[in-house]
Amino acid sequence: MGKLYGIGVGPGDPDLLTIKGKKLINSVDYLFCPVKKEGSESFAYEIIKSHLENRSVQIVELVYPMHYKEDALKSMWQLNGEKVTEMLSGDKSGAFITLGDPSVYSTFMYTMPYIDKSVVEVEVVPGITSFCATACAMGIPLVEWEEGLVIYPVRKNSGETLSKILRENDNAVFMKPASDQAALVEALRNNGLENNFALISKTGTEQQNVITDIHTLEQGEMPYLSTMVVKKKGIAKS
Amino acid sequence: MGKLYGIGVGPGDPDLLTIKGKKLINSVDYLFCPVKKEGSESFAYEIIKSHLENRSVQIVELVYPMHYKEDALKSMWQLNGEKVTEMLSGDKSGAFITLGDPSVYSTFMYTMPYIDKSVVEVEVVPGITSFCATACAMGIPLVEWEEGLVIYPVRKNSGETLSKILRENDNAVFMKPASDQAALVEALRNNGLENNFALISKTGTEQQNVITDIHTLEQGEMPYLSTMVVKKKGIAKS
Repeated sequence: MGKLYGIGVGPGDPDLLTIKGKKLINSVDYLFCPVKKEGSESFAYEIIKSHLENRSVQIVELVYPMHYKEDALKSMWQLNGEKVTEMLSGDKSGAFITLGDPSVYSTFMYTMPYIDKSVVEVEVVPGITSFCATACAMGIPLVEWEEGLVIYPVRKNSGETLSKILRENDNAVFMKPASDQAALVEALRNNGLENNFALISKTGTEQQNVITDIHTLEQGEMPYLSTMVVKKKGIAKS
Repeated sequence: MGKLYGIGVGPGDPDLLTIKGKKLINSVDYLFCPVKKEGSESFAYEIIKSHLENRSVQIVELVYPMHYKEDALKSMWQLNGEKVTEMLSGDKSGAFITLGDPSVYSTFMYTMPYIDKSVVEVEVVPGITSFCATACAMGIPLVEWEEGLVIYPVRKNSGETLSKILRENDNAVFMKPASDQAALVEALRNNGLENNFALISKTGTEQQNVITDIHTLEQGEMPYLSTMVVKKKGIAKS
């Protein structure tokens, strides 16, 4: 039986990898690294490479294009699933590294259905999510007491949904806020939450940047890889 | 200046501590461990103790009672905040360990406002949340694609809120589901989601237990420390 570990490597700081993740990447025969196209850099690999002590591990690129045509993606998942299955069949082991946590919008979970479980056993290892890292880096709670929390990926033309989420919830995390920046700003204004948000990019790196002024938000363009936290209670650092 | 690290130690498996967390607990003068009452066991300490190599670190218990009288809790937070501030003033360093992630319903965040920031600098280090660990242990995604996710702590008499959450969201995580088990079962039934949930307890341990049958749920009592995941798409392991 082959063995595959799906490992969340966290949001970017190499030391936010778990001890379990580090042990596993150093114990396997193959390290599967998602890349946008053949030969391009794997961000997940960049995160873990300083912890890779097993020099005999074989690095295998798996291509995951960034576009959103579902059919093309599905055939790519299938191709990658079959490739992984084939390489691990028998008694080989592999680690598939993925950003953040595997259960939250991850490439790994899209591929998992295409792994043949009759020949490869799969174990999933959690990682630090970008939203937890963001809140911790800012020193603010995401959610407390009897409050709830919504995590939502901003899409184009989602203005009404965004307004409703803000109206009905104590705390919200918006992923990919740049997908409809204008609608998000409007939803904040409509709910009187102009001073209750933080937009953070490059969490936990030296280039970490936090915007809490709605005018700055209106005048500039949000970076693609950013996260917005909105709290009805306010986002002041305690 | 003193330095305090608030460190999420994850849900229970010692190897789900981050590399950063391990480095920090071995670098500080004091290790602050939350306990329910004086002399009782600290679960956070049990999680990290196998990684504690610095034998000269001084272990300090901080009492956090489990009851919910807010006034009494506030004075406890203040007392603990002042104790930590006093011990770290000058140039001492400390690590305050907390279950899961510090930004998600954590004892640490309630204490942080009572740390005097003019004499102690605070850095918060994220940890693996119970809900990510739960989904990974089950091999299912919490949230995919353009779906949203709600995290909500069940309270007594919350039937209508639970029904509304299930009606309006693709995915929900219910913390402390035992707080109103009957209302939760009813909300699942009202929304036709009898086959779309998993209740998991003792995540990631050898006693891990998963319930997906609503009759079992109706006949038994949920363990206090359990988590429920509900997915409209279904919870079948891929």
